Amino acid sequence: MRAMTPTAHPAMPQHLPPTLDNQQWIYRRVPDGLVTEAHYERVASPLATRLATGEVLIAARFISVDPYMRINQARGATWMSPHPVDAVQSAAVVAQVLASASPDFVPGDWALSATGWQAHAVTHASTLTRLDPGEAPVTTALGVLGMPGRTAWFGLTEAGRPHAGEVVVVSGAAGAVGSLVVQFAKRHGATVVGIAGGEGKCRWLVETLGADHAIDYRAHATPESLREALLACVKGVDVYFDNVGGLVTDAVIPAIHRRARIVICGQISQYSGGLDVPDLGPRFLHHMLYQRATIQGVLARDWLHRMDEMRRVVAPWVRAGEIVAEETLIDGFDALPSALASLFTGEHRGKLIVRV
Amino acid sequence: MRAMTPTAHPAMPQHLPPTLDNQQWIYRRVPDGLVTEAHYERVASPLATRLATGEVLIAARFISVDPYMRINQARGATWMSPHPVDAVQSAAVVAQVLASASPDFVPGDWALSATGWQAHAVTHASTLTRLDPGEAPVTTALGVLGMPGRTAWFGLTEAGRPHAGEVVVVSGAAGAVGSLVVQFAKRHGATVVGIAGGEGKCRWLVETLGADHAIDYRAHATPESLREALLACVKGVDVYFDNVGGLVTDAVIPAIHRRARIVICGQISQYSGGLDVPDLGPRFLHHMLYQRATIQGVLARDWLHRMDEMRRVVAPWVRAGEIVAEETLIDGFDALPSALASLFTGEHRGKLIVRV
Repeated sequence: MRAMTPTAHPAMPQHLPPTLDNQQWIYRRVPDGLVTEAHYERVASPLATRLATGEVLIAARFISVDPYMRINQARGATWMSPHPVDAVQSAAVVAQVLASASPDFVPGDWALSATGWQAHAVTHASTLTRLDPGEAPVTTALGVLGMPGRTAWFGLTEAGRPHAGEVVVVSGAAGAVGSLVVQFAKRHGATVVGIAGGEGKCRWLVETLGADHAIDYRAHATPESLREALLACVKGVDVYFDNVGGLVTDAVIPAIHRRARIVICGQISQYSGGLDVPDLGPRFLHHMLYQRATIQGVLARDWLHRMDEMRRVVAPWVRAGEIVAEETLIDGFDALPSALASLFTGEHRGKLIVRV
Repeated sequence: MRAMTPTAHPAMPQHLPPTLDNQQWIYRRVPDGLVTEAHYERVASPLATRLATGEVLIAARFISVDPYMRINQARGATWMSPHPVDAVQSAAVVAQVLASASPDFVPGDWALSATGWQAHAVTHASTLTRLDPGEAPVTTALGVLGMPGRTAWFGLTEAGRPHAGEVVVVSGAAGAVGSLVVQFAKRHGATVVGIAGGEGKCRWLVETLGADHAIDYRAHATPESLREALLACVKGVDVYFDNVGGLVTDAVIPAIHRRARIVICGQISQYSGGLDVPDLGPRFLHHMLYQRATIQGVLARDWLHRMDEMRRVVAPWVRAGEIVAEETLIDGFDALPSALASLFTGEHRGKLIVRV
């Protein structure tokens, strides 16, 4: 499913009341295992619409749910402080301007904002990134032309560094980042194996995204069995782009070629508890030695200042329809916590977005 | 203990008998756990001393035992085929020429050879590397100016890339490679923490090698306790030069700083069985993500062609006595298997060499 940029939208209010009935999802409790709706509370609160100079009032139209949100709920230190409780869940948002006290925006303008899981917000115009619906569907700012796209592009090109003829294996290959890595790696001339959960996703990886092979990890009870399936497709692995960790990674690492580059982009199998109390897994560092291989952890934020480089290359592919920028849209502000939870049960393809 | 180059040695035989009584250690059985003398057989066999053109007859004077020998006894694939059984245990040897049919060597010359655990050998002169006892003690060809030195130098400079003011942690810090890494890292201006087994080694690391801190891993029952001790010395780890793996690595990895470089040089805690049937350990790849850190496996062979670069820098330090090139010498050809076994119980400091 692909969200087209709305051509018509609820008319922009010309005259705003002094307050709006705002809706927010407040992060209330730190999860120990899976994050669910029980860790959030939906609250209604009035929002004053009077704007100081430079401020704008925005309405969220598309709100992001991303796996990193669960990392940010770990109890221990990660790359950031834990998300504060009793605060609005932070998130990227594609919003429309309702009222503006800034020379930079007029009502109806689209922008990327970091105002989180709330229906409306007042924010300074300088915190917004303008979006041009004529250039690309606005939802791509949450996906292929946003954080997930940046992660896929730079994670692959800067850390994975695939060459034509090499083998690139992608775990979480049907996800927001993985589905792009599969396609970017194909454009580099690599042989691409996608690993995902379920036959439907695997068929989609091959038939729609152009992966050379796809492996359904759910069909394998052990890492050894999964590795056998992998080695039935390819002789070994030059680049392993890992979004998943755990048993899938246990399967792939002993199959690396010499000088393999392992890119740690995500470890989603470990997010629901394993970050605080690590799972046990087989030790594998001797394989790094044997193959003189490299493991590198990557985060999208490290390439934020290079967004223009990625857009210069990738945006034309998106405009030309040469990249499948898959999105799964879930409707309704109410659905936000359950949409987040569903990331960890692997039900969706591509970028998951809640339309409000 | 430091082996000085012998100034006098048993006189070179002027007239050789047609055969010599040679002694060899044959690798007979693949170990499952620790390698012991039971996996070897000592055999006596006559060696014909008649030389074809270009050949030399050598007598081993110093024979190497190295941890990689146990890797080469793993049942699975490593970076090389498993060591063949019923063959002489391969090893680097510092030998003296007894007779020569080559214009390149005369009796009495010293050379580095790859003829393994045998008292004598006939080999083509082209397989030998001439050693100049006037330049450095000949045993340094098995240590600081040989494979362990190359591993330490390039592993640290090419993969670890320490900067002044950074924290370098070395596991197996009293070993052949580790003891050099400690000193090389100090010369880079780093704060160095050595991890080793036993109070005596730790005192030596600080008092003799100049480590800023030393931690006795045997004093800690858990990785958490070891990590606490580490974080009592330093705030975090920029370079972790790992010779050991296992629980020591479990302790260090969660303490890495952003952009940490983890160099996998050895995993000696895993060699006696864990390579074939991996131990379980806590998963840690999420830390790579948080810190955008890198793990790189290194092998000495990858820098063999750059030996001259290392010697240009390090040999003057050795000659000037500015580097402690520690050696532990064990006497007697009979001692070879037990000397190898002792590498895995951590009894020695520096490079272990058997003098025959």
